[in-house]
Amino acid sequence: MNAAPDPSRDRFAGLVGQGVAAIDTPALVIDLDTMERNLHRMADFCRARGLRLRPHAKMHKCADLAKLQMQHGAVGVCVQKIGEALALAAQGVSDIYISNEVIDPHKLARLAHAVRAGGTRFAIAVDSALGVQRLADALAHAGVAHPQAIDVFVEIDVGHGRCGAAPGEAALALARAVQAQRTLRFTGLQAYHGSAQHRRSVAERRDTIAQAAQAVAQTKALIEAAGIAVPLVTGAGTGTFVHEAASGLWGELQAGSYLFMDADYAANTADADAPAFEHALFVKAQVMSRAAELAVIDAGHKSHAIDSGPPRVWQPEGLDCGGISDEHAVLRGAHLPTLGDTVWLIPGHCDPTVNLHDVMVGVRGGLVSGRVERLLRVDARGALG
Amino acid sequence: MNAAPDPSRDRFAGLVGQGVAAIDTPALVIDLDTMERNLHRMADFCRARGLRLRPHAKMHKCADLAKLQMQHGAVGVCVQKIGEALALAAQGVSDIYISNEVIDPHKLARLAHAVRAGGTRFAIAVDSALGVQRLADALAHAGVAHPQAIDVFVEIDVGHGRCGAAPGEAALALARAVQAQRTLRFTGLQAYHGSAQHRRSVAERRDTIAQAAQAVAQTKALIEAAGIAVPLVTGAGTGTFVHEAASGLWGELQAGSYLFMDADYAANTADADAPAFEHALFVKAQVMSRAAELAVIDAGHKSHAIDSGPPRVWQPEGLDCGGISDEHAVLRGAHLPTLGDTVWLIPGHCDPTVNLHDVMVGVRGGLVSGRVERLLRVDARGALG
Repeated sequence: MNAAPDPSRDRFAGLVGQGVAAIDTPALVIDLDTMERNLHRMADFCRARGLRLRPHAKMHKCADLAKLQMQHGAVGVCVQKIGEALALAAQGVSDIYISNEVIDPHKLARLAHAVRAGGTRFAIAVDSALGVQRLADALAHAGVAHPQAIDVFVEIDVGHGRCGAAPGEAALALARAVQAQRTLRFTGLQAYHGSAQHRRSVAERRDTIAQAAQAVAQTKALIEAAGIAVPLVTGAGTGTFVHEAASGLWGELQAGSYLFMDADYAANTADADAPAFEHALFVKAQVMSRAAELAVIDAGHKSHAIDSGPPRVWQPEGLDCGGISDEHAVLRGAHLPTLGDTVWLIPGHCDPTVNLHDVMVGVRGGLVSGRVERLLRVDARGALG
Repeated sequence: MNAAPDPSRDRFAGLVGQGVAAIDTPALVIDLDTMERNLHRMADFCRARGLRLRPHAKMHKCADLAKLQMQHGAVGVCVQKIGEALALAAQGVSDIYISNEVIDPHKLARLAHAVRAGGTRFAIAVDSALGVQRLADALAHAGVAHPQAIDVFVEIDVGHGRCGAAPGEAALALARAVQAQRTLRFTGLQAYHGSAQHRRSVAERRDTIAQAAQAVAQTKALIEAAGIAVPLVTGAGTGTFVHEAASGLWGELQAGSYLFMDADYAANTADADAPAFEHALFVKAQVMSRAAELAVIDAGHKSHAIDSGPPRVWQPEGLDCGGISDEHAVLRGAHLPTLGDTVWLIPGHCDPTVNLHDVMVGVRGGLVSGRVERLLRVDARGALG
């Protein structure tokens, strides 16, 4: 059951072609010029090193952006949920990897149905024998019988302590289990260190990925010694990808946030080799209450996720954003904006911020004098299952 | 632009009548029996004291629940955004108070259009002369000419330090400004202390509301001394309403979370006079990865808001929920559930949790052996503007 479109709620009708001032608040706004610079810089980085880029679409959840990334060299995209995969596939995204475990037979049945329907190449991660068996069973029940109908990566826990089989023998056992299923193709290893992305110093991130690389190298060697090819190691995020790239082990990078950048990633000390990504995603807000010492804006944490800290105030400069509640945030600083003024925020964390919005407003020509070029639908917004 | 309904994403099709086991994860589930006990207890509390109840629908964003509350004595509902008001009005909610300031002329034009259309009685809060003028202008531009077409509350800051005019002369000046506009009806004072809701001890909450009551009493007396009637003081939340009720000043209570309760409100020491509200809102999740020392569930902070802390694990008992990322949470404890097991969470904060979902699944007969009775649409989900 999805919400029916309701014209009275469509704040963005007729907006394309208008100036930035016409964008209702709070709204998620993409600076398209900046985003495209980020797009090209990452594509160039991967091309120069002969690496595959498979950006994580859990970040933007937008089929148009997924297709744009693929037009600029990405081999496909990642998602975390079968619901996300189906939403993007329905909009024509042709190569989608669910870089996460799914154990529920009903969810796997939905995926198997999509595999049978064709038109999109799917991949998925596993970290348990039960997961492998249920995936194979779901394909069989859906009538999928052709060999290697879906790509399967064995995830290993490279130090984050969340999902993933233990490196070594456990991963080998899973690779064998995948190979034993005719409809599955063992495609390699999923190796992603989530918490490493947000460690602030270059040395911390480099050392963490060096340890992850040891686990990858050891596991890969063990599987290959057992006579099973490991075609690809996939992983990495915007915080660490230069280190995975330098390791020579990872053949595919999954960074997603590079396209928009957020306040949390910008707080990392930059790697020398990393492209200079710029902030391209903003929340446009408005001052709706003023007191002597504070300005209250109409954007709280229903507009911008605060799991990775508060947003940064981009414009006007010199303001601190605190006191964030559901629908409000409180600005303090020497030069406070006045009632009705526009305030631009950089979200603390882009992924869950995008998930709060149905639409991203794409602006060409900058946030001051630009115009709305297009609306980008967040196709997989709320696709939790 | 709203997302078009997509059958392949409808995880809840055909669910009504089925057992709880059939609910796909992660999903927001209402225990309807418990919710109805909360509904009756709050209605009884207000009826016994001759107080108006106007529950805050920013919490559930659901027209069916707003109407249910009104069938059980509520005079109407509150919302925070014009977008929420329009979404609920479109579904037949007949009395809606926007308990928040709106300064943007385009937003006010949408409201004025709805006032002109009729069918719903609207009210709104103001805390600035500019807000009063723009509201009156919007009504005039929309062709609304009849007297007292909309109810207007003057918000005073009773100590939270967010929105609201200063108590006393500033509020009087606004009351006069409202009265000077023929299409506006000055309906009284909005007096809500947000942060007081979450102070843990009874004494802290009582003392904070006692201070707020002083500001209300002084301001009310000043306005009345100027010859302007103050028909109503409206405010209060689930954490403090017994104190506003006891003050004799507030005539209308805006509590919303009582209907569902969340982990944060349950962490308050209970007031002696407060009805015993029970947890009625849960996130159903599933274990999708297991290691020796941890179980990973498929519900992260895209499924349950963490602004007021992590969720509590309701079932199985004895588990700690940490390591919460976008799509995962990590459970630890002596008796970990196994791969595929169901886990029930109590969200830390119900309002922003509901806003992450399109649908709430209403269950009758309990979370163990109950059946799905109805799906409740989150009509104002994402209605930010």
